[in-house]
Amino acid sequence: DQPFVLFGGMNVLESRDLAFEVADAYVDITRRLGIPYVFKASFDKANRSSINSFRGPGLEQGLQLLADIKAKYRVPVITDVHEPWQAEPAAEVCDIIQLPAFLSRQTDLVVAMAKTGAVINIKKGQFLAPREMAHIIRKCEEAGNDRLILCERGTSFGYNNLVVDMLGFGQMKALGVPVFFDVTHALQMPGGQSDSAGGRRAQVVDLARAGMSQGLAGLFLEAHPDPDRALCDGPCALRLNQLEPFLKQMKAMDELVKGFEPLDTA
Amino acid sequence: DQPFVLFGGMNVLESRDLAFEVADAYVDITRRLGIPYVFKASFDKANRSSINSFRGPGLEQGLQLLADIKAKYRVPVITDVHEPWQAEPAAEVCDIIQLPAFLSRQTDLVVAMAKTGAVINIKKGQFLAPREMAHIIRKCEEAGNDRLILCERGTSFGYNNLVVDMLGFGQMKALGVPVFFDVTHALQMPGGQSDSAGGRRAQVVDLARAGMSQGLAGLFLEAHPDPDRALCDGPCALRLNQLEPFLKQMKAMDELVKGFEPLDTA
Amino acid sequence: DQPFVLFGGMNVLESRDLAFEVADAYVDITRRLGIPYVFKASFDKANRSSINSFRGPGLEQGLQLLADIKAKYRVPVITDVHEPWQAEPAAEVCDIIQLPAFLSRQTDLVVAMAKTGAVINIKKGQFLAPREMAHIIRKCEEAGNDRLILCERGTSFGYNNLVVDMLGFGQMKALGVPVFFDVTHALQMPGGQSDSAGGRRAQVVDLARAGMSQGLAGLFLEAHPDPDRALCDGPCALRLNQLEPFLKQMKAMDELVKGFEPLDTA
Amino acid sequence: DQPFVLFGGMNVLESRDLAFEVADAYVDITRRLGIPYVFKASFDKANRSSINSFRGPGLEQGLQLLADIKAKYRVPVITDVHEPWQAEPAAEVCDIIQLPAFLSRQTDLVVAMAKTGAVINIKKGQFLAPREMAHIIRKCEEAGNDRLILCERGTSFGYNNLVVDMLGFGQMKALGVPVFFDVTHALQMPGGQSDSAGGRRAQVVDLARAGMSQGLAGLFLEAHPDPDRALCDGPCALRLNQLEPFLKQMKAMDELVKGFEPLDTA
Repeated sequence: DQPFVLFGGMNVLESRDLAFEVADAYVDITRRLGIPYVFKASFDKANRSSINSFRGPGLEQGLQLLADIKAKYRVPVITDVHEPWQAEPAAEVCDIIQLPAFLSRQTDLVVAMAKTGAVINIKKGQFLAPREMAHIIRKCEEAGNDRLILCERGTSFGYNNLVVDMLGFGQMKALGVPVFFDVTHALQMPGGQSDSAGGRRAQVVDLARAGMSQGLAGLFLEAHPDPDRALCDGPCALRLNQLEPFLKQMKAMDELVKGFEPLDTA
Repeated sequence: DQPFVLFGGMNVLESRDLAFEVADAYVDITRRLGIPYVFKASFDKANRSSINSFRGPGLEQGLQLLADIKAKYRVPVITDVHEPWQAEPAAEVCDIIQLPAFLSRQTDLVVAMAKTGAVINIKKGQFLAPREMAHIIRKCEEAGNDRLILCERGTSFGYNNLVVDMLGFGQMKALGVPVFFDVTHALQMPGGQSDSAGGRRAQVVDLARAGMSQGLAGLFLEAHPDPDRALCDGPCALRLNQLEPFLKQMKAMDELVKGFEPLDTA
Repeated sequence: DQPFVLFGGMNVLESRDLAFEVADAYVDITRRLGIPYVFKASFDKANRSSINSFRGPGLEQGLQLLADIKAKYRVPVITDVHEPWQAEPAAEVCDIIQLPAFLSRQTDLVVAMAKTGAVINIKKGQFLAPREMAHIIRKCEEAGNDRLILCERGTSFGYNNLVVDMLGFGQMKALGVPVFFDVTHALQMPGGQSDSAGGRRAQVVDLARAGMSQGLAGLFLEAHPDPDRALCDGPCALRLNQLEPFLKQMKAMDELVKGFEPLDTA
Repeated sequence: DQPFVLFGGMNVLESRDLAFEVADAYVDITRRLGIPYVFKASFDKANRSSINSFRGPGLEQGLQLLADIKAKYRVPVITDVHEPWQAEPAAEVCDIIQLPAFLSRQTDLVVAMAKTGAVINIKKGQFLAPREMAHIIRKCEEAGNDRLILCERGTSFGYNNLVVDMLGFGQMKALGVPVFFDVTHALQMPGGQSDSAGGRRAQVVDLARAGMSQGLAGLFLEAHPDPDRALCDGPCALRLNQLEPFLKQMKAMDELVKGFEPLDTA
């Protein structure tokens, strides 16, 4: 029961300046709080609602920026890939590469990612039961990679809504891999706004506390200095100036829960 | 932010001896832990799957037993009512009377319960959104009773399954009444077994921790000395011999969460 | 494979004049179309959102009105009951008594209804899987009544929405009892409007056609001469002046489907 | 209101012989019944549960086989693509290219497909509301292609289950594009079997009738001479020897429904 790791950063690499501003805040705060930290940002948002939505700097520029952040702050970095050919270059820079939820069953992508040898963060598809993640774990293992993380990010619940099934964390932990919680994307209300994914920023603390209560390997969080002006998923992002008190609470919750003796109630 | 209250006891009044055994354990443990306590048991299970399922001692005998427990242990008691005529006699003995989830929209029952002046514990129907509870609160208030509690117990999620939407707690708290969490019934898998509601006892700690992480007014819990032999809902009941370590964890969680400063993340 | 029966009428007995106007239209049209017909109306809406919502004329006046319609038009009548004591008087007038969806698991009500010997129309609870209806059928049979009808009216699908699972009709038919479809209530959007159940009147033909395609024993339909002024569930009601073309389509669909040879595709 | 088009064939191109056997049956039957027909088969199953599951002959061999079938039978052909680079070669052979449901929001794939100028069959993601399809239509149009088809294939409903919302067809038709129904994949029970998608072949007629009752532009259907030995999705496939009576029913339903006058019930 190690302390939780934070995959924290921003949704998409909006600009070099913003990326450093965000990384700076995360690095400073997590160092002071003693939280193991990995910088997260996307170089491309590959499934926006509109073809005209902002997508990011692309693979080459994006990876360069991630490499620069890694070098400056000496922190591991994570990013998501969307097609098999992106896995190899992404893994050259990133310590962890992420399999997107919608793509979590695409065999070629899984295999390409597995072959890099990098740690893979598997986002759980909104259409998948927790126990179905066993198939994806096995796929990665068959492709020669068992350095895996499962990441909950909500399940389809009727139309335009996601729900986080708290029983799913325990069921995924039973599969024998570290389980993370992407509280930011679990707050989405898919299609709930005209042009972009709606969100429920006001309840990010509620949902994050619930996740931390389960004794997780890690938390995935996106923040932004001005969420209302964020170029993607702003409605779900934490205000950067609340990162420190937010993380203090999560750390306290994590320490408490991991200090509990296990109870066998079966 | 008062410490949480425990509505704890057994599913149905199986026998006088068992009721006292269970009450004894709860009273002893909650006194030592300093947890405000209300004894809960049903005199009748009115919606069992089969006409041959055990239902309980009935109104008269059941209320007498609750009165005896109340007198012996000097604790408040709560029970559920199913038809309007039961509200008045139940409220003569019980400090709190409970509106069942399936019946939570039955106007005559709501009004009869409201008229007693007793506190009403409103179980949220499995078919209701958190914000729809505003209608039921208003119904009670229109009937002259504003001593109300809302109690989450899971929402229909596909067939034969319930999910607890953690965002619902905050939405119900915003309605201005105390919010409880019935972790026992939220564990049900409706219709999941041939003759009785299936359950997931092994994950009761997971789900209870998640609920407590939300800073609730109270927890609703059923325990049994031998859940496999319980006459109703055994698959969801906590083993009575684990009540103390279970409650210690819940109390620690509650204290931690209620000590946090509120964060405005909107 | 008999032709489908129509349980048709109005939501609630708003007034004597309106009840006769509605019955008149149904009787006239179904006679001309050769559709077996049962008049449906409620004497009491027992689970409105507000205590101030219109509920109806009550048991005594309502049953008198149903008896008058039965006498004048020589058609069977159906109404719903909400508490055990209502079953006996309702069955004295009505040929069919209806178990409401929210109450479909209340044993005392089921038993009281079964004891009358009347045909029972069991509305499927929004929280029940089709195969769980086997429990309710067995309850009725154990209480000595096997003159049963199952009636689909939609299943909870996320918040404030219902979905009709077309596979459920076949699963319920396999239980050996006639299966009806309440297309009107299946159109509800629960809690979707401030004070009353929202609806989707514009799609009533779509949903009714889908139901009829399954070869059902019957259709349940509510109509109103002016749905926007209906005192309950107007958003789901068919305009009375469209009843005839609507039923012509349903009859044509029913005849076609019941003329098909069964295909064993297992 | 043209007669419905059939996208019919087999799940995956298991072998040359089998492909011709299946095409032969479809072509023969649809010609006799006068049903406009497009041959469908996949060259690659890109999201199987296991890395060891059969995937198909791959792009090159698969497209050659599709070209041969097209040449021999003079029927249009459709296949699905999974990565942007596959769109162009697929469109050289196929009249219609299909966007898979899990990938229905991947912008690069949508754009690559749109640029080919081929008709695009957009499978609705299991995680999408019918009205969200407007975003995907707009994406295609922005990329210069408005020759679009929407195809329902079921929506996530709890875990390991799909439901077809009959109201969704009308909502998608209102978006102004032809709407098809993939009855085969809508029968899936995702993850319901150990190694492959479970199915409900026994109810294919029920579900197909429901779809046809909505007056659709087309039906999507997979059949197999021996579904229990099919290399993918056998549990959902129609037995090939039942194709003719099945299609006769669908054609009769289609003709009836499209002969109905539209009723404005809003």
